[in-house]
Amino acid sequence: MTITQSAGEDFPPMPAWEIAQWFNTPHALQVEDLRGKVVMLHTFQMLCPACVLHAIPQAQRVRKAFPLAEVAVVGLHTVFEHHEAMRPQALDAFIHEFRLAFPVGVDKPADTGPLPRTMSRLNLQGTPSILLLDRQGRIRLQHFGKIDDLELGALLGRLMAQA
Amino acid sequence: MTITQSAGEDFPPMPAWEIAQWFNTPHALQVEDLRGKVVMLHTFQMLCPACVLHAIPQAQRVRKAFPLAEVAVVGLHTVFEHHEAMRPQALDAFIHEFRLAFPVGVDKPADTGPLPRTMSRLNLQGTPSILLLDRQGRIRLQHFGKIDDLELGALLGRLMAQA
Amino acid sequence: MTITQSAGEDFPPMPAWEIAQWFNTPHALQVEDLRGKVVMLHTFQMLCPACVLHAIPQAQRVRKAFPLAEVAVVGLHTVFEHHEAMRPQALDAFIHEFRLAFPVGVDKPADTGPLPRTMSRLNLQGTPSILLLDRQGRIRLQHFGKIDDLELGALLGRLMAQA
Amino acid sequence: MTITQSAGEDFPPMPAWEIAQWFNTPHALQVEDLRGKVVMLHTFQMLCPACVLHAIPQAQRVRKAFPLAEVAVVGLHTVFEHHEAMRPQALDAFIHEFRLAFPVGVDKPADTGPLPRTMSRLNLQGTPSILLLDRQGRIRLQHFGKIDDLELGALLGRLMAQA
Repeated sequence: MTITQSAGEDFPPMPAWEIAQWFNTPHALQVEDLRGKVVMLHTFQMLCPACVLHAIPQAQRVRKAFPLAEVAVVGLHTVFEHHEAMRPQALDAFIHEFRLAFPVGVDKPADTGPLPRTMSRLNLQGTPSILLLDRQGRIRLQHFGKIDDLELGALLGRLMAQA
Repeated sequence: MTITQSAGEDFPPMPAWEIAQWFNTPHALQVEDLRGKVVMLHTFQMLCPACVLHAIPQAQRVRKAFPLAEVAVVGLHTVFEHHEAMRPQALDAFIHEFRLAFPVGVDKPADTGPLPRTMSRLNLQGTPSILLLDRQGRIRLQHFGKIDDLELGALLGRLMAQA
Repeated sequence: MTITQSAGEDFPPMPAWEIAQWFNTPHALQVEDLRGKVVMLHTFQMLCPACVLHAIPQAQRVRKAFPLAEVAVVGLHTVFEHHEAMRPQALDAFIHEFRLAFPVGVDKPADTGPLPRTMSRLNLQGTPSILLLDRQGRIRLQHFGKIDDLELGALLGRLMAQA
Repeated sequence: MTITQSAGEDFPPMPAWEIAQWFNTPHALQVEDLRGKVVMLHTFQMLCPACVLHAIPQAQRVRKAFPLAEVAVVGLHTVFEHHEAMRPQALDAFIHEFRLAFPVGVDKPADTGPLPRTMSRLNLQGTPSILLLDRQGRIRLQHFGKIDDLELGALLGRLMAQA
């Protein structure tokens, strides 16, 4: 749960995400566009109970607690099951009803297999998962499942304190 | 919020519901099948935040707290908006993921207009709404929005105490 | 957790309580004064965490949810440990700060031993404990520890429904 | 709620506290003993509802979430009302029952007036109040009332990141 600390500061760079469609943003976002900010990548599925009951409200709280210029919250809809029930049109209704206040990208389906492309590339274990990127776009936390507000806040605070 | 009390005990009978499809029950349920039990009819939409965050967990708690022979919990999926996103196939995934432990019927769409048939017939104001039926199948509470566990429990207890 | 049901309706009558001092009531209360109402006897200690964090807020909710004419909530301060720290003067400050909105009686210390008199008489196992009395003053529930709002509400509703 | 930022980094140093009695520590603590650690000074009264229901559980979570070598949590019992009910003997029972897992000092009563000495010196507005000190022992946050875990975590994280 703690930020990976390596001697040589060899944190892996966040690879590009592959997005089929964006919501809540006037134009497509690239990882590089967020350089200079701390980034919380919140990966979820709209029909995943732990996402809806815990991780999405937490992502909303993070969006509200920190200035846009300091922390970017980006949702990534990584559908790997019940694909028919979680198409972009349904996600649009979900985002509207739950009043999500941050950009959400739809992880691009793969040519074969249920896992979407960014999810595979990042080797995510399921939803919800959180990735935290430092201001240089390096992955400093990758966590599957719940994380407490206190710990998440401390990780964000640490990263905000770094140039 | 209190149970309607009329001098002559003139409580309206629950009208028949019109169901397009059932989940979590081996055969279609009729209102009359539940005669003799207290019934909690929990009307919801799978993409309604107050339903997902409050009313559905409460319906699950009611299911768990009281014996099947005493209290029947029946879900009614009354889709009146975002129809494309809440089709029965999506509801099926939702029921599975949220592990709903009670029968759920899909309120039958009307020939015209967004409101489904049972919702119109009952003149429901939105979701979530709760209806409580006494052992004679009469409507003793119809409530739109949240209701506390303590008050809901007291209403159920009162109805359970009546022959 | 369910109300005791005996064939011959042989529910034990609530014995008299022995109170050293009352708070939040202009005159001493006797069990008989409450005949005709459903009574929730909430036994607690002001320095018991499960009382402060769970049972006292619940007792306050019960007081607020039901009319005074139907449900009486009575607190009983059953000090059986840390006697020096929970004297009536400290309880007075506690009642004031936590804004308890129901009468509270101090269970009378015994001549010998740490257990106060009413606690011994009722054979209570600890705090918090709840007793529910029906309108005839008979004990219908005696429960040590937490109880959910839904179950407590149902028990109160059942008892309110009885003449 | 945000950490004070001054151009010249002129953060006030934490003054010495005056403690009548310590609990949960084998020897008296001085502010200087904690130099090098981030310090959360949690000021409370054992009969203050917002302390008991919110701030004390939060202080316990902070103690649990971060290593002792990084974050020191110190309780300060600043009794300014109901003095008779919150004497050290009562506090001892409280600490035991609520299983407080950090050192707690009793703020020394003043010669005159209800406010204890450290409380006056720090000009605290009431309880609960939180002070955060950086590794140099400078006051970086002084906050009266509730603060969310996410914000508190971020402040602690920022301070932990600083040498």
